[in-house]
Amino acid sequence: MKHLEQLLDRIISHAKINLREFSFDIDGHMKGLLPLDQLTKFYAYYGITSHHPIFFSFINSSLSGSYLLGKCRVANSILYKCDIRGDELKQKGEALNFKDFDLVLDDDEMISIRNSLLLKTLVHNFSHDPEKIDLFLIKNTIACPYANIHGSPLDGCFLGPFSTIDLTTGHDVIVGAFSYIQTGSLAHTNVEPGHIWIKNGGVFDFQYRYSQDALKNYIGFAPGKGVAGRFMDFAEDLKTDFQRLYDVVHMEKPTIVPSGASLNRYAVFQGESHIEENVLVAQRAFIESSWLGKGANAQENCHISHSHLDGYNVTAHGATIIHAHLKPRVFVGFNSFLQGKENVPLTIGEGCIIMPHTIIHLNAPLDIPPGCLVWGHIRNKTDFENHSMALDDFSKIKDECKMGNMHFKGDGSAFVQAFTRRIEHILEANGAYFDGERNSGHAQKGQNISFNLIQPYPKGPREGLYPSIEINP
Amino acid sequence: MKHLEQLLDRIISHAKINLREFSFDIDGHMKGLLPLDQLTKFYAYYGITSHHPIFFSFINSSLSGSYLLGKCRVANSILYKCDIRGDELKQKGEALNFKDFDLVLDDDEMISIRNSLLLKTLVHNFSHDPEKIDLFLIKNTIACPYANIHGSPLDGCFLGPFSTIDLTTGHDVIVGAFSYIQTGSLAHTNVEPGHIWIKNGGVFDFQYRYSQDALKNYIGFAPGKGVAGRFMDFAEDLKTDFQRLYDVVHMEKPTIVPSGASLNRYAVFQGESHIEENVLVAQRAFIESSWLGKGANAQENCHISHSHLDGYNVTAHGATIIHAHLKPRVFVGFNSFLQGKENVPLTIGEGCIIMPHTIIHLNAPLDIPPGCLVWGHIRNKTDFENHSMALDDFSKIKDECKMGNMHFKGDGSAFVQAFTRRIEHILEANGAYFDGERNSGHAQKGQNISFNLIQPYPKGPREGLYPSIEINP
Repeated sequence: MKHLEQLLDRIISHAKINLREFSFDIDGHMKGLLPLDQLTKFYAYYGITSHHPIFFSFINSSLSGSYLLGKCRVANSILYKCDIRGDELKQKGEALNFKDFDLVLDDDEMISIRNSLLLKTLVHNFSHDPEKIDLFLIKNTIACPYANIHGSPLDGCFLGPFSTIDLTTGHDVIVGAFSYIQTGSLAHTNVEPGHIWIKNGGVFDFQYRYSQDALKNYIGFAPGKGVAGRFMDFAEDLKTDFQRLYDVVHMEKPTIVPSGASLNRYAVFQGESHIEENVLVAQRAFIESSWLGKGANAQENCHISHSHLDGYNVTAHGATIIHAHLKPRVFVGFNSFLQGKENVPLTIGEGCIIMPHTIIHLNAPLDIPPGCLVWGHIRNKTDFENHSMALDDFSKIKDECKMGNMHFKGDGSAFVQAFTRRIEHILEANGAYFDGERNSGHAQKGQNISFNLIQPYPKGPREGLYPSIEINP
Repeated sequence: MKHLEQLLDRIISHAKINLREFSFDIDGHMKGLLPLDQLTKFYAYYGITSHHPIFFSFINSSLSGSYLLGKCRVANSILYKCDIRGDELKQKGEALNFKDFDLVLDDDEMISIRNSLLLKTLVHNFSHDPEKIDLFLIKNTIACPYANIHGSPLDGCFLGPFSTIDLTTGHDVIVGAFSYIQTGSLAHTNVEPGHIWIKNGGVFDFQYRYSQDALKNYIGFAPGKGVAGRFMDFAEDLKTDFQRLYDVVHMEKPTIVPSGASLNRYAVFQGESHIEENVLVAQRAFIESSWLGKGANAQENCHISHSHLDGYNVTAHGATIIHAHLKPRVFVGFNSFLQGKENVPLTIGEGCIIMPHTIIHLNAPLDIPPGCLVWGHIRNKTDFENHSMALDDFSKIKDECKMGNMHFKGDGSAFVQAFTRRIEHILEANGAYFDGERNSGHAQKGQNISFNLIQPYPKGPREGLYPSIEINP
């Protein structure tokens, strides 16, 4: 265990040096966050398919629990239940266009993680940074439980619990608990907790700030006290349901997986649940007593229970949907928390966009009309009216709009279009439109996959560390 | 699957070139022996401990089902349910004495398997060849089901089913079904089926030949007909009991494993079974309704059911013991088949040596007195008298002794001493004499082990092949 302790110290030191300009207590926040003695109880696994280029290299690292796919290099790092998803890595010879620049990849893109701690963290690699087209680098970075790193190369960052950094190159950045950042790039910034921020250069800038008072019941994160609150309790409660998936090598698929659909063997799928064609249920997704219509996807770490999704729904990484009926093409963003109850149902109309990190935690039934943009903290109809706008109306904003803690500047139409296009891309990429031959995506490409399980040294000074491994085609 | 088929053809070609001097139909014997489409259903696993130096390299190979421990390199080969046990590999700096020569290892010894097919085959590496002290090479070799390669570097060999080559460097050798070879080295020889041959230079030469007629009920192996007979039926019947071990990642150990004992998680241990201190139950051992006394070992692929072993018993690789009572320090050699029945019990007295590849298949109860050497095919007391001798009497042989199909030449005392010393070495190496601090062996060193599971490409032209993997400490 000695080497593992040294490694953790080293990772924390790196983050502290990068973030020295802020008076942020990294040591205090890290205290007790990573149970080192638990790391030997898990195993890591990497996927082998005939669709994804293969290269894995693991050096002086602990990979416990993590899932890896696509070309990936990990050095001097501790991973823990991450999903390192390299299924959108760019491939050699691929041509890319960034505004005035035409770029061609000389080599396959690779994820590289160095001197970093990623704790129960998703890493999805679809990056938009033209400066590093063949390297998706995460360096000197600490990610707290249930943070998401999505298309965001990071150098010297600290991500609070349940935060998301999305399509944003980060350098020396602190992202507070439950904050969502999508700003293209961000440097030398300390983002306060519960800040939702989507910015596209001078075109638009959407910001919403949770009241710290409302947030504290959902997520608490203070030095020496670890992560607390409803989100953490909820996530930790699912542990036992997942345990059996990790105990078994070959998971028998239920017979109900229709053609074009993919049910990951590390997903929980229980109760009277059903999936239609072209549905993707990703690893660590939790589906209970729910119906997922054609082309719906349930991404990593999402939770869907007692709900009906009509079809072409996106449930993004970490989103929770309970006792809800989602009409077609409803989008639910990252880490959104939608909780109806059996007698307090939530209905969301066709084509609604539930912004990332939205909390709909009902004390009265709510029926959201079609075509709405929804954000913030909603408990009932009044809250909803103060935290939503018809997409058509939002598109009419030309300059600025304020509603409570929401502040939008720029072109509303460009904002709605950007969101709509991205949702279409997500559906396409996940294989929602597969016709048996064309338009295949993750749902189809992930159907034939081998999982290779790797375990750490069980005893001695290297306990919890993994041997160095290099895997080539 | 295309690449896998090409690889098999290539391996067979290599063996054919090496063995071209013999009129032996390799193609015919190989027909249907390896079900290529089954290979994707299994996974390989390698062990990580803090006691065994680590290096694994797998290139252009299928490893399905195999178990690997210690430094090991596999290239252009197909393994299938092998136990590649590198736990007796010599380590860097170790000094060895071979008669007049003092040798020191410049590097850790490594197992290297090239252009070979090893089918359900144990490879144990304790080699005595002073010409290759840091390389245990198996090259251009085909091993049929349940053959044992034990301390025997091989180049261009074909091992029939249930054969054993033990402490013998082999070059261009065919070993017939159920033959046992321990001759130090052997080259350009076609050993007929059922030939038991133990030779130490000019000191002694023990040979026993089964009648082909007696053998055919136990083991049949003819071109185009695969492997048939009682041995094969018996081995294949156990498949389902083993299946559940491979389905589960973390096997809960029964609470009865006492200190100093080791029960491998890939062993079947069922019925009312019990083990005492310092017992070793190795991978793929099958224990049912049996009692194993202090310091007993049950090696790979052995089968012990409805039996009582008093203690310090060796049950070598592939040996079968059914409805038997073994008094202390009974040794049962490789692939021996001892079958009593509930009302036809077999008792074996203290210190008996049951020679490798002995068949005791009773039609009447048999009580073997202590201190006997036993060989050949035995069904009752008369057979026993014709296939055994008191060790004390055997030690008195000075020149030659013939009994039925057994022919011994040389020094009987040296033969008995060599056997006795080897049994002591086996008990020591397996940790039978561990006192809580000193004399630790495999039973103790194998207690803390991680198993890493690796799977092949699930689809496409590489189906059944594994990616190239290199693992370092």
